[in-house]
Amino acid sequence: MDSTGIQPNSAPKAAISELTETLGPNGVLTTPEDCARYATDQSGLAGTPPLAVLRPASTEEMSQLMAICHRHALSVVPQGGRTGLSGGASCPAGVVAVTTERLTGVIEIDEEAMTLTAWAGTPLETVQEAARAVGLEYCVDIGARGTATIGGTIATNAGGIRVLQRGMTRDNVLGLEAVLADGSVISRLAKTVKDNAGFDLKHLFIGSEGVLGLVTRAVLRLHRQVPGTATALLALPDHAAALHCLNLARSMFGGRIVAFEGMWPDYWDFVCRETTLTSSPLADRYGFYVLIEIDAETGRAEEELEALFTELFEQGIALDGVLAKSGAEAQALWKLREAVGEVDDAFGPHINFDIGVSPSALGQFCEAADARLATLPEAGAVLKVGHIGDGNVHLLVAHDGRDISEDRIESVIYELVRDWHGAVTAEHGIGRIKARWIGCSRSPEELTLMRGLKAQLDPHGLLNPGALFAAPDAACHEIALKQP
Amino acid sequence: MDSTGIQPNSAPKAAISELTETLGPNGVLTTPEDCARYATDQSGLAGTPPLAVLRPASTEEMSQLMAICHRHALSVVPQGGRTGLSGGASCPAGVVAVTTERLTGVIEIDEEAMTLTAWAGTPLETVQEAARAVGLEYCVDIGARGTATIGGTIATNAGGIRVLQRGMTRDNVLGLEAVLADGSVISRLAKTVKDNAGFDLKHLFIGSEGVLGLVTRAVLRLHRQVPGTATALLALPDHAAALHCLNLARSMFGGRIVAFEGMWPDYWDFVCRETTLTSSPLADRYGFYVLIEIDAETGRAEEELEALFTELFEQGIALDGVLAKSGAEAQALWKLREAVGEVDDAFGPHINFDIGVSPSALGQFCEAADARLATLPEAGAVLKVGHIGDGNVHLLVAHDGRDISEDRIESVIYELVRDWHGAVTAEHGIGRIKARWIGCSRSPEELTLMRGLKAQLDPHGLLNPGALFAAPDAACHEIALKQP
Repeated sequence: MDSTGIQPNSAPKAAISELTETLGPNGVLTTPEDCARYATDQSGLAGTPPLAVLRPASTEEMSQLMAICHRHALSVVPQGGRTGLSGGASCPAGVVAVTTERLTGVIEIDEEAMTLTAWAGTPLETVQEAARAVGLEYCVDIGARGTATIGGTIATNAGGIRVLQRGMTRDNVLGLEAVLADGSVISRLAKTVKDNAGFDLKHLFIGSEGVLGLVTRAVLRLHRQVPGTATALLALPDHAAALHCLNLARSMFGGRIVAFEGMWPDYWDFVCRETTLTSSPLADRYGFYVLIEIDAETGRAEEELEALFTELFEQGIALDGVLAKSGAEAQALWKLREAVGEVDDAFGPHINFDIGVSPSALGQFCEAADARLATLPEAGAVLKVGHIGDGNVHLLVAHDGRDISEDRIESVIYELVRDWHGAVTAEHGIGRIKARWIGCSRSPEELTLMRGLKAQLDPHGLLNPGALFAAPDAACHEIALKQP
Repeated sequence: MDSTGIQPNSAPKAAISELTETLGPNGVLTTPEDCARYATDQSGLAGTPPLAVLRPASTEEMSQLMAICHRHALSVVPQGGRTGLSGGASCPAGVVAVTTERLTGVIEIDEEAMTLTAWAGTPLETVQEAARAVGLEYCVDIGARGTATIGGTIATNAGGIRVLQRGMTRDNVLGLEAVLADGSVISRLAKTVKDNAGFDLKHLFIGSEGVLGLVTRAVLRLHRQVPGTATALLALPDHAAALHCLNLARSMFGGRIVAFEGMWPDYWDFVCRETTLTSSPLADRYGFYVLIEIDAETGRAEEELEALFTELFEQGIALDGVLAKSGAEAQALWKLREAVGEVDDAFGPHINFDIGVSPSALGQFCEAADARLATLPEAGAVLKVGHIGDGNVHLLVAHDGRDISEDRIESVIYELVRDWHGAVTAEHGIGRIKARWIGCSRSPEELTLMRGLKAQLDPHGLLNPGALFAAPDAACHEIALKQP
C-alpha cells in the first residue's frame, strides 16, 4: 500500500474475496453466466462481462464495497435497470458491476408533504403505482418504466413525455443519498422544499451518470393525481404552426398541458405505412403532426380541446384533427408517437440522435439537418419525432450498414448541434456512445471544470470509467476546437 | 511571483493600480465616501469599506479583473443590489468589492422559446417588466424586486411568494455565465430546456453565494402571463387546518395556486394591533390565517374561491374569511402578509429566522420552537409568518437587546432545526450571519464535500471570503457534532 492507501497492483481476486467476505455470498456473483448478464445495457454497445457483480443490500454495504474497491483501485460500473440507450451501464474490461437490484422498495410516502422516499433500485413503475395508490403522482415517465430504476433515472436525469409540465427528473428530486468513490456517504433525505444552507449537492449526482457517486436513496416530489386527461391529434402545415399552436394552447390551458409531442411527416409516413405498428387516422398527409394532452381537471377538457380546434381552424393553422372520445382512442393516438420505440428492426441500421436546441429553433435545426444529411451518400432515410415544447428531437438516420464508428453522419449532425448551441443529448445522456462528442455541447472551459470536479470527487477514476469523459484524442476535440 | 503565479505579498495598491489601468477610471472607485457606500448590505451586519469598488462593464472585464485579483491574491466580495439579509455582500477587511451595477440590461427576449437573457446587474423588477411587456412573466418575486439584481437572486437562489407554483430561482434559470476565481469564463447561455451533455454546471453557481464564481449573464425561463388573480383570506383553527385547506385547494385548482401564505396569531395580532401598517378585516381572532391567491385563467376564479369557502365551512374547517372583490381589496389582504417587511422598528431588537422543514411538519416545528423559547428568559415575543406549501417559516424572536452574538436563542432554534432535519435558511441564504450554524443543516461529510468543491474552484479562497463557510471553531461544530 502506498502513502495514499491505494493498492494499485493488488489482484482483483484479493479485492473480490474481501468483497465476498463483506457482502456475503448472496452479495457477489462471479460465475461466467451471471457476469455475462450484467455486461451491458440497451444501447447496443457490446460490453465485457464484469469480474464480479456486487449486490449491496444497504447504504452501509454500498459504502463498504466502495471503500474496498477504492483501496484496491478496482473500478466499478453502476447499474440500475440497464435500460439506458447511451451505454452508461455497459462494462469495459476489468471492472466490477454494482447493481441496485437488492436496494429496492418504497420507504415512505408523506401525503401532506407530497413526497415519496425510495431505494435507488426501485423500478420507476413501482414508485408511480405507490404514489397513485394514495391519489398522488410521480410525474417522471418514460417507456422503460417497468424496468428502469429510480437510481438510474436520477443518474441519467431522465426526461420523457411529461417534461413540459413537470420538468426533468432533476426537478422532481428533493433529497438524495449517494456514496462517494472512497465510501463516504452524502446523505440528505430531508423533505424540505426550500433549503439554501450551502451548495445544493444533489445536483452533482443527478445526471452525472454515476461518475461522481452512487445514488442509494432519494426523496421524490409528488404531485396531486390528475383526474383524467383529454387527448387530440392535430394535422398542421409545418413546425412553425406547431409552435403557434403550442402558444395558443398555453394561453387557453396554462400549466394544464400534460404533453405536446411532434411528429414530422418522414416519421409519420414510415410508422403508418412501412410498419404494422399503427395506421393513420387521417385521410390525407400533412406537413406536421402534433399530439396534445391536457388534464381534465375542469371536467370539460374535451370541450376545451374542441375550442382549440375551432380557433386553429379559423386561423387557418390546423388542417385536420382527431379528438379522442375514449381511453382506447387516446391510446391509439399515443401509439402513433410511441411507435418510435419499436421501429428499430423495420427501419434497419440507423443512428438514433437525441438532440436539444432552443424550442424556437427546433424546426429550422431539423431543416438544416435534413439538408446536410442529403449531401452524404452513406445517409439514408431520416425519421424525426420529438418533444416540441422542450426543443428536443429524436432523429433516426438510416445508414448503409458499414462500421459507423467513423461515420460522417455523426460528425455532420454534431457539428450542427455545436453551431446551434444545442445539446448532443437532451435526455438519453452521454454514456460511452456519445462521450467523444461532448465537446460539441461543452466548451473547453466547461470540460476543464467537469474534469476538475471528477478529479476532486473520484481522484482515482474508479466510478464508471469511460462514461461521460472520453479520452483526450477523441473526436469531440477535432470539431469542438473549430469555433463556429 | 512564486511557481503558482500568485504574488501573495504584493501590496493591494499595486493590484488596484493594475485594475484601474484595465478597467479605466470609471471602473474603479477608491474615495473613502465611495467605498463606504459598498461596505455592507441590508443584513444589519457592519461591514468594512472595501479597498476599492470594481465596476466591470463586460464579461471580459470581469474575467480580467479576477485574473488580476488572483495574481495578487486579493479577495473580492461580489455585490448586486445589496438587499441580502444574511450579510453575503458585507465586506470583511482587506477586500475589494465587485459590483454588477454596470453589467445591466435585458439582452434578448425569445417569445417562442419563452426565455429572457439579461446581464447579472439588471434589477429583478426590470426583468419582470420586460417580460410582461410581451405578455410573459418572470415568476421569481421578492419584496426587494426594485433593487435586488438578477445576479444576486441567482447567487442566493432567491425564493419569495411564488415558489409554490414556480419554484425557486434555481428552477427559473436555463443558462448561466460565470467567471471563476482565476478569471476563466464558464459560459452556457443556450436556451435549451433539456441538456444532458455532462454535469449541469449552473447549479454550482446558483445559491452558492458567490464563493464559487461570479455570475455575469443568465438565460431565464419565462411563463405565460397569468390573466389576473383572485385573492382570499381564510381564518382557521390551526396550522393543521391550513394544510387540509391547501390539499383541498390543490384538488380544486391544481397548479393554478399562485400563493398560499400562512400567518400565526402572534404575527397577526402584532401587525393588526401594535402597528399602524394594517388592520384586521375580521371581527374575531383565530388560531391561524391563510392568504390564498389563484390565477383567474378560467374567468370565474372568484366563484371558484367561493366554492372553496363553502366546502371548508361545510367541513367545519374555515371559521371566517374575506374574498377580495377588487384589486384594492386584494392589495389590502396582501398588506397583512407583507407587513412583515416593515415591522423591524415597531418590534424592537429581534432575530429574524428563516427556517425550512418538511411542509407536513411545519406546524409542529413551530409549536416546539415556541415551547423552547418560552424557557429562555432572554427571549421575548415571537412572530411567525410563512410559506405554508413550502414548509418555510419566518420566525421573528424579540430579545432583550444585549449582544446577541452568543445568544442562546439562536442555539435553541438551530438545534431544533437539526433535530427536525430542516434548513437553517430556507431562502435568505447563509451569508456571514449564519455561517457558524450551517452544521445544523449539513453533515460533516456534506461540509467536507462543499469545502473540497470550494478548494477545487477557488484554491486561494479569494471569492467572498467568510461567506457560507465559517472558521472551523465556529458554533456549528459544537451543535452539529452532537448527533440527534
